[in-house]
Amino acid sequence: MELNGYSLIAGTPSAGASRSFLSTAAASGKALPPPYYVATPADVNLAAEKAAEVFPLYSRLPGMRRAEFLRTAALNLARSAEVIVARAKVETALSDGRLHGELSRTSNQLLIFAHQLEEGSWLQARIDTADPMRKPHPKPDVRSMLRPIGPLAILGAGNFPLAFSIAGGDTASALAAGCPVIFKAHPSHPGTTEIVAQIFYQSLAEVGLPPAIFSLLYDDSHEVAHSLVQHPLVRGVAFTGSCEGGLAVAQLAADRPDPIPVFAQMAAPNPVFILPGAAQKKPVEISDAIAAAISLSTGQYCTKPSLVFLPEGPDGNAITSALVRIISAMASAPMTSPRIAAQYRQQIARRLSAIGVSQLNHQWSASQDDSSWALPAILKTDAEHFIHQYQLHEEIFGPATLLVTYRDAAQIMTIAENIPGQMGIGVFGTPADFSQHVDLLGLLEQRTGRLVFNGTPTRVELCNAMVHGGPFPATNVDRFTSVGAAAIYRFVRPVAFQDAPQAQLPDELKDENPLGILRILNGAITSAAVHSR
Amino acid sequence: MELNGYSLIAGTPSAGASRSFLSTAAASGKALPPPYYVATPADVNLAAEKAAEVFPLYSRLPGMRRAEFLRTAALNLARSAEVIVARAKVETALSDGRLHGELSRTSNQLLIFAHQLEEGSWLQARIDTADPMRKPHPKPDVRSMLRPIGPLAILGAGNFPLAFSIAGGDTASALAAGCPVIFKAHPSHPGTTEIVAQIFYQSLAEVGLPPAIFSLLYDDSHEVAHSLVQHPLVRGVAFTGSCEGGLAVAQLAADRPDPIPVFAQMAAPNPVFILPGAAQKKPVEISDAIAAAISLSTGQYCTKPSLVFLPEGPDGNAITSALVRIISAMASAPMTSPRIAAQYRQQIARRLSAIGVSQLNHQWSASQDDSSWALPAILKTDAEHFIHQYQLHEEIFGPATLLVTYRDAAQIMTIAENIPGQMGIGVFGTPADFSQHVDLLGLLEQRTGRLVFNGTPTRVELCNAMVHGGPFPATNVDRFTSVGAAAIYRFVRPVAFQDAPQAQLPDELKDENPLGILRILNGAITSAAVHSR
Repeated sequence: MELNGYSLIAGTPSAGASRSFLSTAAASGKALPPPYYVATPADVNLAAEKAAEVFPLYSRLPGMRRAEFLRTAALNLARSAEVIVARAKVETALSDGRLHGELSRTSNQLLIFAHQLEEGSWLQARIDTADPMRKPHPKPDVRSMLRPIGPLAILGAGNFPLAFSIAGGDTASALAAGCPVIFKAHPSHPGTTEIVAQIFYQSLAEVGLPPAIFSLLYDDSHEVAHSLVQHPLVRGVAFTGSCEGGLAVAQLAADRPDPIPVFAQMAAPNPVFILPGAAQKKPVEISDAIAAAISLSTGQYCTKPSLVFLPEGPDGNAITSALVRIISAMASAPMTSPRIAAQYRQQIARRLSAIGVSQLNHQWSASQDDSSWALPAILKTDAEHFIHQYQLHEEIFGPATLLVTYRDAAQIMTIAENIPGQMGIGVFGTPADFSQHVDLLGLLEQRTGRLVFNGTPTRVELCNAMVHGGPFPATNVDRFTSVGAAAIYRFVRPVAFQDAPQAQLPDELKDENPLGILRILNGAITSAAVHSR
Repeated sequence: MELNGYSLIAGTPSAGASRSFLSTAAASGKALPPPYYVATPADVNLAAEKAAEVFPLYSRLPGMRRAEFLRTAALNLARSAEVIVARAKVETALSDGRLHGELSRTSNQLLIFAHQLEEGSWLQARIDTADPMRKPHPKPDVRSMLRPIGPLAILGAGNFPLAFSIAGGDTASALAAGCPVIFKAHPSHPGTTEIVAQIFYQSLAEVGLPPAIFSLLYDDSHEVAHSLVQHPLVRGVAFTGSCEGGLAVAQLAADRPDPIPVFAQMAAPNPVFILPGAAQKKPVEISDAIAAAISLSTGQYCTKPSLVFLPEGPDGNAITSALVRIISAMASAPMTSPRIAAQYRQQIARRLSAIGVSQLNHQWSASQDDSSWALPAILKTDAEHFIHQYQLHEEIFGPATLLVTYRDAAQIMTIAENIPGQMGIGVFGTPADFSQHVDLLGLLEQRTGRLVFNGTPTRVELCNAMVHGGPFPATNVDRFTSVGAAAIYRFVRPVAFQDAPQAQLPDELKDENPLGILRILNGAITSAAVHSR
């Protein structure tokens, strides 16, 4: 597949500005052709106009038609696995296994939404029929369903070049919901993005849908993203990245004359709590699980545990020693860019400059090279030092974690009360531990989107029940997930039609239920037609 | 029922500050006993602490137990109708019929949520079972459901002393969701509020639930509301009132170190569009409907149409004349307070100071008295003058509307493109009108939470399918409704439990489905138990 380096506005290449940037090979730092041309304000505007123009048509398509596109795209992505993975591997230094896994996850994500569209009950079609005889006022006919909010700007993430990028969960759920997408590519994998975009357009053509549903814009600064968030025709934003980035985007959107929603998946340390019984009974299982979680993809998961709370004393020490042994045997590995690796080293240095924090594996050298390679690190402190030094409560993005020893059940409650919102929290415990820590589990549930028992939150299973979200600052809006079937709910809002003639109703709400979906008819769930008119 | 004038913190009266305010009889302006003592910062703090303490218990109660409370409260409110309506009538000057209707609506609202809790599918319990053999990684067991977000501050509205006040939709949906409520009473009907609070506490006692689930605070300034919104233990806010008020509350919540959601139901002009065919064929029906909508409860509905778009020429003129005839025959009527009536007069004066706006019924006298009585008004302009004078696009709270004539289909599209988000929009049309204005209907759908055919949006039917919400600035968050069954979704967020032992799961997610609710089990809707473990 030939790469051109152009933004694609509704499928049409735009030469954009004269300014361009080069993708780099993550492992070697070498520049990769072609140059990627930065999108201009005119590109942003045209992409928004095309998306707004196609919205009335696309938003009214029956779910089956959108599902057809998602299934075709999933198949075409799988067919192009070799070419996609080859480019992604160079751009990100992630392994073949990881990238093939991520691509199949990306296809599966498209299929989950296709299934949901075909089934149809997610729309929450509600019908309350009229009663003209009711006193003192006649009862109107009221029907409502979830409808797409409009063209969306999606800002791609750096750490997952496929599953949280151009064809990732945000784009998949947005297109499933009926919202056209303007995707701003992350500059760390522009070539991978271009390949996937071409597959998207090919899939749209195969199913006969207009290319205006999708645009791809390149930029290596924040300008295009900011223009998109402020564009009057853009009706919502999805973002995956840092807290600063997410909050900046949310503030821009809130400052518009007509504020629009931003769904920002931000950073969290995703702590793991090791309860005393588990520390005693399964130290090997626990240290293995934590070492694997820290080192997976060089620690570049937004659900990697950056904090591990474990009991003081011999049981906790045994886990610590085992973990240090495993981690010390690990070699350095490349991160997705030199910038990310430099940030990782700064985060470690910041923790080591706090009071009472030490590193347990090899000593850290602040004067390391400026490459993208990173060494794993195990840091340690105790609860007293942890609780009041807020810089220790944050995520370390990379292959490191901070072990924090606690004294007793009261201290672990104090810790739990002091941690902010998380995407995931892991708890290792025996049945006795769990029954002795009911209050702790209740508190942890309030602090997270997902509570993992006897495991780490690192892998985010792609399924109906997944919640990849959580209270602030893990996200800016905790009432949604960005992974799994329910991610679609971010991009819809309920609309009611009162006393509407049949011809003016969407198919989902018509008397005869032509789509055969489950609806809530006068309070009862049914796929029956409406008879009593 | 004796009135004491005290805030009620978890059911216990607090003498509060020495400062107090008096309720006034809306029609006469006379002060009513007893004095209402303003809640202190200590009251606010205690109410928040009590709510946070009871949250773990209340949030885990099975839906059936919360439903029991809602049913009991609904019954007890109905039983006390006479005493409630008697006080509300004096405090608000609303009619007996309206207040009895509003009370029965309030009870019905509690019952709708009770039914929803008993049925259980609203929780979106999702279960994906494990597959330990899956390659390359074992599939975990993931289960999720909607869980309450925590203690809520609810800020009562002035215009509905029952249905949008202490026992209104916000409180009912919050308590149904499992969130304890701290209710800040609107100062225009403190006595009515106290009576309903007493009935709430009596109902809680009858079903054996702790009074900490609910607190009532009095204040005639913004201080208590602002302290609540900023209190660390308060996790969300519901507000019904003006745009300025709603946006101020939302800003306060966004400025917290840990921002919390605010659901603000604000102001909108809720326009009515009269299409040419309808103007020709049913002028009497249309003018009657609009006159009724304007004058209902002296125009104090947040869904009252403040704008009516109608065709230039004889058909539009006939409707205008009929409307002026009906409205001119109406006497003045009291609004709920002198302050509200003064604002109404200011809003009329502001429109008359715009270019090209005239009043069609009696001339308006800016030097009217300072009582709570208001005269209905019909104002008129044309599309050219309307489109560029933004002060004409806003709500008039009171018995008035602005008629705007349009020239043709193109001009009505321009109008629709220029109006902001609405709670409701009405469209009068014939079948031919609707098929000739498909683009207009599509655009109006994007601008509103509810589209009413051949009617006004004024009455908000209480039912499963209702959407009382809409795009900014009608609300600050358009993805929810504040009336009807779906109002509960504001106060919950999804939480996932991964590989959780049965004992650590909420009943809703346990294998055997002890509550017998509909769940999404491996992608299919069923009330079956989980077998394959």
